Amino acid sequence: MPDRLKKFQDLLASHRLDCYILTSDTNIRYLTNFPASESLLIVFPTKSVYLTDSRYTEEAKIGLKGVIVEQFTHNMTKTMFDIIVKNTASRVGFDDRHLSLNRFRLFEKECPKGVELVRVNHLVEAMRETKEKSEVDQIRKCLTLNLAAYKYLKSVIKPGLTEKDVLLKLENYVRSKGAGFSFDPIIASGPNSAFPHARVTDRKIRKNEPVLVDMGIDIKGYKSDLTRMFFLGKMPSLYTKVYAAVEEAQKRGIAKIRAGVKAADVDAAARNYLESLDLAKYFGHSLGHGVGLDIHEDPRLSAQSGATLREGMIITVEPGVYLPGQFGIRLEEMVFVKKSGCEVISRPR
Amino acid sequence: MPDRLKKFQDLLASHRLDCYILTSDTNIRYLTNFPASESLLIVFPTKSVYLTDSRYTEEAKIGLKGVIVEQFTHNMTKTMFDIIVKNTASRVGFDDRHLSLNRFRLFEKECPKGVELVRVNHLVEAMRETKEKSEVDQIRKCLTLNLAAYKYLKSVIKPGLTEKDVLLKLENYVRSKGAGFSFDPIIASGPNSAFPHARVTDRKIRKNEPVLVDMGIDIKGYKSDLTRMFFLGKMPSLYTKVYAAVEEAQKRGIAKIRAGVKAADVDAAARNYLESLDLAKYFGHSLGHGVGLDIHEDPRLSAQSGATLREGMIITVEPGVYLPGQFGIRLEEMVFVKKSGCEVISRPR
Repeated sequence: MPDRLKKFQDLLASHRLDCYILTSDTNIRYLTNFPASESLLIVFPTKSVYLTDSRYTEEAKIGLKGVIVEQFTHNMTKTMFDIIVKNTASRVGFDDRHLSLNRFRLFEKECPKGVELVRVNHLVEAMRETKEKSEVDQIRKCLTLNLAAYKYLKSVIKPGLTEKDVLLKLENYVRSKGAGFSFDPIIASGPNSAFPHARVTDRKIRKNEPVLVDMGIDIKGYKSDLTRMFFLGKMPSLYTKVYAAVEEAQKRGIAKIRAGVKAADVDAAARNYLESLDLAKYFGHSLGHGVGLDIHEDPRLSAQSGATLREGMIITVEPGVYLPGQFGIRLEEMVFVKKSGCEVISRPR
Repeated sequence: MPDRLKKFQDLLASHRLDCYILTSDTNIRYLTNFPASESLLIVFPTKSVYLTDSRYTEEAKIGLKGVIVEQFTHNMTKTMFDIIVKNTASRVGFDDRHLSLNRFRLFEKECPKGVELVRVNHLVEAMRETKEKSEVDQIRKCLTLNLAAYKYLKSVIKPGLTEKDVLLKLENYVRSKGAGFSFDPIIASGPNSAFPHARVTDRKIRKNEPVLVDMGIDIKGYKSDLTRMFFLGKMPSLYTKVYAAVEEAQKRGIAKIRAGVKAADVDAAARNYLESLDLAKYFGHSLGHGVGLDIHEDPRLSAQSGATLREGMIITVEPGVYLPGQFGIRLEEMVFVKKSGCEVISRPR
């Protein structure tokens, strides 16, 4: 059985839970190493049951170690409660962010007498926030390819090509390395770069304008996330000025990062600097986020975040300044949080 | 304003709703033609408001026709209710399948006095079930490329290549045509084909074994979904026997399809035939499903479905027989439901 699953089982007692229903594919994958789909994991203190349908049963039996695989036919919820009752569990934990209201109502409808559904959120996510060595290694692999892809892009991006042309080349490159993307890459040229989440268009890249590329690599579920600016030709002075400001904001954010620091304070370190230049109003998003099996996970580096950084977290630091109609600049690195500082793991070593 | 949005606005009165909150990206895209992300659409009888954050505001203002774009900063739910109250709406519809229990509780918490949240599911999905001409054209484009990709695969699949090798070639082919996939393609060789939802592996394809390929094309959000069997070498008699059975089951399903027929009866037509050969026990999934902006949408062709087919629906017909440890065969076509029958739109014309 994977260590993580054992660790999770040990958490149940401290919440006085007899079992826990996992409905998030990613959380199930984290605990079992099995790429779950349309299934449930029911975790008891000393055993776990993966509930799936006939399409996935055979694969699950092979892929899941130390987990019992059960198959349902028509009513997954009823079968789930049958298993819970058979194991004499009464306090049943679940995370209310990972099921729809509709599904919860089905749960309530089928819930047998003596069984109580207890909302206990964030149990698996809390484990996922700090990365084990094997996870860090996996993310470093993604970063190595991410950097190689940027090196490749540098030789590829030319005036006259459309954003879509560049995307196609990038896709061929990444897939030929046996990897995938963490999300649809952003390739935003000229004024399109002022859209923080621009979609790739048929716009032709011109000389003397920036191209913002935000892309991440996915290898076996783990992810990276990096943004780079390309500039073809001569940079106008406004561009170099804003670039320097974003770069300095990023430096200040990174300088702040170490275990024990509040995530909100890291965001503030970068934001306040931009504010001092009257640029913070063009920086609408938060400074960064955790990355792992999800492209956006905890902790969030934002003014609203209540999180405190811990050793082993991997987070992005990505300040941006977006001048509508003109251009946008975002610089994004990934850092590994240490006791007394951090390591920027997204720069060539 | 898109006609669909107008049509949807006209539906509100019949449910005595003052407005409707859309939380599904796909439903918002269907109504507005705008590829929504992490946003809300609030539809009133005579106007609509798209609520998003600063990352998407500029794009939304350009992309959304006849829709007001509002931006929230920290509390999306509160801003949503502010807009609802400002427009003196009290009965507010929503679909409880498209928001998490957690989010619903935020809704309840912020819900002002005099505003009532009313569950009215399936409003947009009901519109989406039957396809407009422009949607059928779009899906036909996907099918044309899907068929071309299968023709290409026929020339590519060779013993000695791994499933992943084949996937890479397929990806390059599809992306070079400017399209994407509806879902991660299934390329399952030999015994892997007995997993109905197999993942692509490093297994080398051998001579004298089947390769099941299930793939779909995505062009501008619309999708296709087709499964084909490839066989390299000499087919064993069990394979040809099962193949003929699946083919006949599919024929019987298709023969049943016309407007007014129950979806469950179409499933039964195929399933009963396999049952007569004692093969139904190896056919664990349902016979088919609607396809459109989602790869799986209503109606479902299954024993449990309460749906009745209507003219203009586009559905898959995909019986399968999976013999664990040996091989699986699935044949999947897409059909357009007509008044007096159906057209198989997934075969070369």
